[in-house]
Amino acid sequence: MEAAYLDHAATTPMIPEAIEAMTAEIHRVGNASSLHARGRRTRRVVEEAREAIADALGARPSEVVFTSGGTEADNLAVKGMYWARRAKGADRVLISAVEHHAVLDSALWLGEHQGARVELLEVDEYGRVHPDTLRAAVERDPDSVALVSVMWANNEVGTVQPIRVLAAIAHDYGIPFHTDAVQAVGHLPVSFADAGVDALTVSGHKVGGPLGIGALLVAKGVDPVPVLHGGGQERDVRSGTLDAPAAAGFAAAITVAVNRRKELAERLRELRDELIRGVRAAVPDVRLNGDPVNRLPGNAHFSFPGCEGDALLMLLDAKGVECSTGSACSAGVAQPSHVLLAMGADAASARGSLRFTLGHTSTEADVRRVIEVIGPVVERARRAGLS
Amino acid sequence: MEAAYLDHAATTPMIPEAIEAMTAEIHRVGNASSLHARGRRTRRVVEEAREAIADALGARPSEVVFTSGGTEADNLAVKGMYWARRAKGADRVLISAVEHHAVLDSALWLGEHQGARVELLEVDEYGRVHPDTLRAAVERDPDSVALVSVMWANNEVGTVQPIRVLAAIAHDYGIPFHTDAVQAVGHLPVSFADAGVDALTVSGHKVGGPLGIGALLVAKGVDPVPVLHGGGQERDVRSGTLDAPAAAGFAAAITVAVNRRKELAERLRELRDELIRGVRAAVPDVRLNGDPVNRLPGNAHFSFPGCEGDALLMLLDAKGVECSTGSACSAGVAQPSHVLLAMGADAASARGSLRFTLGHTSTEADVRRVIEVIGPVVERARRAGLS
Repeated sequence: MEAAYLDHAATTPMIPEAIEAMTAEIHRVGNASSLHARGRRTRRVVEEAREAIADALGARPSEVVFTSGGTEADNLAVKGMYWARRAKGADRVLISAVEHHAVLDSALWLGEHQGARVELLEVDEYGRVHPDTLRAAVERDPDSVALVSVMWANNEVGTVQPIRVLAAIAHDYGIPFHTDAVQAVGHLPVSFADAGVDALTVSGHKVGGPLGIGALLVAKGVDPVPVLHGGGQERDVRSGTLDAPAAAGFAAAITVAVNRRKELAERLRELRDELIRGVRAAVPDVRLNGDPVNRLPGNAHFSFPGCEGDALLMLLDAKGVECSTGSACSAGVAQPSHVLLAMGADAASARGSLRFTLGHTSTEADVRRVIEVIGPVVERARRAGLS
Repeated sequence: MEAAYLDHAATTPMIPEAIEAMTAEIHRVGNASSLHARGRRTRRVVEEAREAIADALGARPSEVVFTSGGTEADNLAVKGMYWARRAKGADRVLISAVEHHAVLDSALWLGEHQGARVELLEVDEYGRVHPDTLRAAVERDPDSVALVSVMWANNEVGTVQPIRVLAAIAHDYGIPFHTDAVQAVGHLPVSFADAGVDALTVSGHKVGGPLGIGALLVAKGVDPVPVLHGGGQERDVRSGTLDAPAAAGFAAAITVAVNRRKELAERLRELRDELIRGVRAAVPDVRLNGDPVNRLPGNAHFSFPGCEGDALLMLLDAKGVECSTGSACSAGVAQPSHVLLAMGADAASARGSLRFTLGHTSTEADVRRVIEVIGPVVERARRAGLS
């Protein structure tokens, strides 16, 4: 029997439409920058993909900058916007304390090596940034703020941030606002125009598209300094040969993901709530982390008192349940999650956490499998912890 | 009739083995950083790909850092090695005057914004960097040199550089040496260990693998500062979810490309020489650019006096011949090639140039097509130029 896959936030299977679009294109040849017929054909594939992605996200095609994924898009946003604004004298970088490492570590590097003053915006016990927190931080010296970056929805605990409100505060002071929407797209309604943000990160493989591609949506006039220099592709913001097969697959996936979002979200919310009820019944002292209401429909994140997350993960894996202790990117790292610590968790309960994330292939059988095995697994992990 | 594709240096068709390896993997799911069974399976795919790539290039698996392509690998080498050495007081960046824009523009950006002193090493009329040129530049103040970067073979004119000798000179003074070998791999024998370089760039789609992937080979102890921060993949040198399907396709392609290299190179050299003879017969005043002997086996680069390269390209395209005016990355850019200018060409003859590049799918029919049409096309372009 195939294992139940409850790690869709790490990566989700490609949808058939994306596989089809991508495989059709890898049988062809062409560099989208070449001027001959095959080059122009390839360029059309890329530009049609760009239009589809813009369309799915409420943006203009000219606002879509292709990158190699969410990590690169976050780096381009944080470093690129900082360098652009630093040239005008602004040196403060305000990010939430629960950002993905691609934003957090980019900001910290700017702080250590590029003269930035990095400030982590506090979150409450649910992982939310309060608008007043941002306003107070900005108002200490608005002109010195280079950029604000707060993620749309958290990759570990699933908490959704009040992005529109936060972006509006930054804009009150003329400060550009970036949001990492990697986990939000396909699960929540995401419109670049309506949100009023200046830059937005999206990833291909989190929406049923291929790995190795993503995009940074960049509003007109923001002009981040490139992180990758070279041939001047993507209007000189991001160099590198355009990956037409991946772009085609990404576009197919995001179109379907956005079209089916509402229906999928409803289905996942029901499955997720069933999962939460079942886990609570099996492990009465379990604690659900993140915002109980404003959370991603497919996310359930728990702390199991007296357990080590890694031990739980391995025991569940042996029982045919695949999940994560937090961000896949940090998996295997022995440190407790910075997200949970920022939410006020102690190190022990942070280490005893598991993330279950549902996606387009999730079924009730997957959820039932978790509920079936979680009680004995937690019991065993506790015994191991005591021994 | 399908057009003759003579633009393999821009991108070459994927080989069947690479398509197969890649498509097999895109039907599966897994994040190589996840600890569960599907994650570990995906990690194995990536690590087997890493071993195959290392094997093909005479390197150790631990020396392979996956990137999104040649451009990112060049950026990581130039910026990352500069930042690492800058911290120790070295600020000079020595690169050849004929580097790809991914190296050149990275270095120039470091010069404009990161305190680097960038020096372009002169080349001769064939585009070669003389060892004495490098030695003299280094000896002006060896301790201040952060890195040297000279490409293995030029992407426009095909000139091959004496990499081993140049790297040895840098090493005489303890200076790390990077080479962009994107065009060399699969056409020339390339061994990381034998060449004695500290970092080497390779690209997937130039060797019959997929777009969107490449690698920087990095010798132990070099430790470039990351260009992309985040989850800490690739031993913290390059963050971002590993692209297992692309890695598998890349590995399959490079293995085949290196195994078949000698045979392919011989075949391409013959076809290329036939092309050169035919073009010279049809256009007696044509000039072959680049080193007549030490050049890539599949490269023929010409200047056609009294013509505009873009006009030639479009006329040839209409006749079913696809080629390039230079680097595809700079196609459409009205400036004359910095490579030709560095070789001493005047702006007019630089603008009147065409690059024909052969690859694994090239046939004698392709070459004959060029020879058939080039005479009338040049004549027409000259009349247009005079009118």
